[in-house]
Amino acid sequence: MSDLSRFAINQITTKNLSLDLAVETYARHGVGGIGVWMDYLDAAGIAAGAKRIRDAGLFVPCLCTSAWVNLADPAAYRAALEENRRRLDAAAAIGAPTLVVVPGSLATGERDLVAARQRVEDALAELLPYALAAGVKIGLEPLHPMFAGDRSCLNTFAQCLELCDRLGEGTGLVADVYHCWWDPEFPKGLVAAGVERLLTFHLSDWLTPTRDVYQDRGMVGDGVIDHAYYRDLLNRIGYDGPIEIEIFSRLDWWQRDGDETVRVCVERCAPLVAPRVRQTPSSVAAIRA
Amino acid sequence: MSDLSRFAINQITTKNLSLDLAVETYARHGVGGIGVWMDYLDAAGIAAGAKRIRDAGLFVPCLCTSAWVNLADPAAYRAALEENRRRLDAAAAIGAPTLVVVPGSLATGERDLVAARQRVEDALAELLPYALAAGVKIGLEPLHPMFAGDRSCLNTFAQCLELCDRLGEGTGLVADVYHCWWDPEFPKGLVAAGVERLLTFHLSDWLTPTRDVYQDRGMVGDGVIDHAYYRDLLNRIGYDGPIEIEIFSRLDWWQRDGDETVRVCVERCAPLVAPRVRQTPSSVAAIRA
Repeated sequence: MSDLSRFAINQITTKNLSLDLAVETYARHGVGGIGVWMDYLDAAGIAAGAKRIRDAGLFVPCLCTSAWVNLADPAAYRAALEENRRRLDAAAAIGAPTLVVVPGSLATGERDLVAARQRVEDALAELLPYALAAGVKIGLEPLHPMFAGDRSCLNTFAQCLELCDRLGEGTGLVADVYHCWWDPEFPKGLVAAGVERLLTFHLSDWLTPTRDVYQDRGMVGDGVIDHAYYRDLLNRIGYDGPIEIEIFSRLDWWQRDGDETVRVCVERCAPLVAPRVRQTPSSVAAIRA
Repeated sequence: MSDLSRFAINQITTKNLSLDLAVETYARHGVGGIGVWMDYLDAAGIAAGAKRIRDAGLFVPCLCTSAWVNLADPAAYRAALEENRRRLDAAAAIGAPTLVVVPGSLATGERDLVAARQRVEDALAELLPYALAAGVKIGLEPLHPMFAGDRSCLNTFAQCLELCDRLGEGTGLVADVYHCWWDPEFPKGLVAAGVERLLTFHLSDWLTPTRDVYQDRGMVGDGVIDHAYYRDLLNRIGYDGPIEIEIFSRLDWWQRDGDETVRVCVERCAPLVAPRVRQTPSSVAAIRA
């Protein structure tokens, strides 16, 4: 029997399951944790959802995601910050140590990406004291550059590391191989982040061809990402935090039965999520990065 | 009347026009140059195509593209190098100073992106003496990270600059805002490349949403890219080379009449391609980068 104690499934992977059904299904398959999305948690009710997760014995690596702040209208921007405070509270309520930041990018009609990035930094700096008080980390997740126009202006691991440095305590990195696998600097970035700043690690696969920009991620093993390489790299840097599969798949997995999806997730990820073997410091220096 | 002397249209923009028709149409609209694709040139015949372009008085900023070298089979790999030599000769024949390198990425079944990148570097190092003898530069073009699995393992401007440094004389950079606009390091990279290494500059626009990963580029002005910013940056670094529009648009522009497409290209790009105003060195230091 594989040790799945650090393995979580992000519930968007089983898009058609309610929070209750996802919790029940994941637990039945021996999965350790569930990555929670705000809309499912709201549908379940925060207190009821928290109890359901706790009763099933699942851990929660993160709550997805922050509300977008790509809003030129001051009132709308303030409302987005307030909504983000609510989500930080919700993360605390379900025991999620991290709120994954997906902040949007350009506002309507805007073309200045530097300004959009500054707006995000300002918003996060303003939210940070609240996050620290709530005991929830702000998880900076670089999103694939193909999302730079709309979903997020945080697009490389190095960019997020620098932002993390500027914001300081209470922030960290959410790494997702789907978003970063192409980046020649990603391995170096993981080493630089280290175990203190690496909050959670997401898996899925890059399909060639990719038929849909947003919702055509592949099951681990069905694409071109070298997952074994990342498993070894994470072991070498001493990472023993959550490893979480997260698949957006309108064209395939979202059309399947949730139970089947979870079964295949476990089958494909079990070899990647075993508790790490401790390494000597010299093996860290030898990392290919 | 706008000065279009440095402005070229890459012929893939008018996919349905033969080389002859593209040359005739561009020249009639006062466009200065044509970016040529190998398949159109082969269809026309290299000598006949070269004469047609020369007679029309068009310049050729580049020939697109190198043949892919993502081939594990040694014989197929050797054949790809030989084909690239043929394309270098073709570039010389039509007066194109640059062969745009799009080298492919992972071979079938391959997952090691580091190995794929090394293979590309090895291939280019082997081709370089031939390119130098032909008087044609090897133009390293970073392709958007969404093409890292198949079309190219060269994915950031910084990565290509480093490769250019290693390969040395006879290589340079092909910059395309569509591929690089999201990159926080792109402006710095353009400054670092400088006028000596920046071989040509491509325009098109990023549409939100993007409906097709490969062939849904937008007409300049229809998307979110800040073209005026890049025009000013290029002027400040002293770039006075070609500026070329290149649109892959299966869903829109490829379905329109070529003459209309060319008319709109000219209309949208004329404000971006005026011969540069000379700047003082201090204005270069003030570049936002």
